[in-house]
Amino acid sequence: MPKLVARCITISLDGFSAAKGQALDAPFGKDGLRLMRWAHVTQYFAAMIGKEGGAEGLDNDFLTHAFDNIGASIMGRNMFGPQRGPWPDEDWKGWWGPNPPFHHPVFVLSHHKHSSFQMEGGTSFHFVNDGIESALKQAFAAANGKDVRVGGGASTVRQYLEASLIDELHLVQAPILLGSGERIFEGLDGLSDRYEVVEYIPSETVAHVHIIKKTK
Amino acid sequence: MPKLVARCITISLDGFSAAKGQALDAPFGKDGLRLMRWAHVTQYFAAMIGKEGGAEGLDNDFLTHAFDNIGASIMGRNMFGPQRGPWPDEDWKGWWGPNPPFHHPVFVLSHHKHSSFQMEGGTSFHFVNDGIESALKQAFAAANGKDVRVGGGASTVRQYLEASLIDELHLVQAPILLGSGERIFEGLDGLSDRYEVVEYIPSETVAHVHIIKKTK
Repeated sequence: MPKLVARCITISLDGFSAAKGQALDAPFGKDGLRLMRWAHVTQYFAAMIGKEGGAEGLDNDFLTHAFDNIGASIMGRNMFGPQRGPWPDEDWKGWWGPNPPFHHPVFVLSHHKHSSFQMEGGTSFHFVNDGIESALKQAFAAANGKDVRVGGGASTVRQYLEASLIDELHLVQAPILLGSGERIFEGLDGLSDRYEVVEYIPSETVAHVHIIKKTK
Repeated sequence: MPKLVARCITISLDGFSAAKGQALDAPFGKDGLRLMRWAHVTQYFAAMIGKEGGAEGLDNDFLTHAFDNIGASIMGRNMFGPQRGPWPDEDWKGWWGPNPPFHHPVFVLSHHKHSSFQMEGGTSFHFVNDGIESALKQAFAAANGKDVRVGGGASTVRQYLEASLIDELHLVQAPILLGSGERIFEGLDGLSDRYEVVEYIPSETVAHVHIIKKTK
């Protein structure tokens, strides 16, 4: 059975996955990019932006395998871009340049209409206006038997957790303070009845935690 | 200069330091004692309850040194007992039995009057009705040149952090989910301007994080 997974979802010590104040030059909010420092120093990330070098090791391994067996992605509109409300135009093509790292269909949750479009390397973006379950259904269909990955952001991961639709969550705890921002774990009363931690793997810089949905 | 420190303050993956539903048989709330499992398996804890055995290693070392150079403690009333509102009587002497592990004066924050009392082994309990700064002043005086430790719970640590009165915070991230409960990191906008992470030391079971107040 194909699964819905979330991987490399990073939270700060104080529980935030993005700081306040997202903008074109601040996809993780004001001073929030520090959250992803563990990833940005890796070989995987260096290669993604066409550079050499970068750290090997546990963190790099997790990133390298984050797209294993993934046939489609789902993300919130804030992960796709800094715009809010109705789309001002359709010029924005995401944060990732002409050849995004997905290489499969990506379904963007948005209350506002937007045309689908195709990028280099097999990535296409599609906009879903009728809720998380519809997005999931479309993503599973597009994934063609493979798993679907929820990319983020915090609110999207939270909604899928709340609905018990995520099967596996790989969380990364980064030892930094953000002070404020968006939480994944908010209003999820009873979460520990539905989900459990099955693995705890600290690296030198962050802790990787595997959480799975409990079988009934 | 004597410092105000907080040590071994444990938070769950989802950011809670206690679950909901504190009661006489549940000092950390319903099903919340799991939070302290990392401590309960140690040699330090075994010795504290008069048993042999228990795990050595990093977690045990942190616990063993948690009272180093501490001359007085401060805690919230929920850490002292499960009662709420005016004290029904003065029979309750805390969770810790006749010889509590403090061995110094402990100042309990409470809106309600309660007499001071003395326990075995040098621990005494005093009740402070006029706020966190008053408690801190009394604790520093009682500590006689040594440091003061904020024991907990979440709300007490949060109030001292909010007022920038804590100098050093040793946080323990436990990889468990509680779902709901009390947060330390709530409403602390701008915390990252005032505090910074200076050390990250994962053990096999939890991550130890040292946070200090930034010097201006």
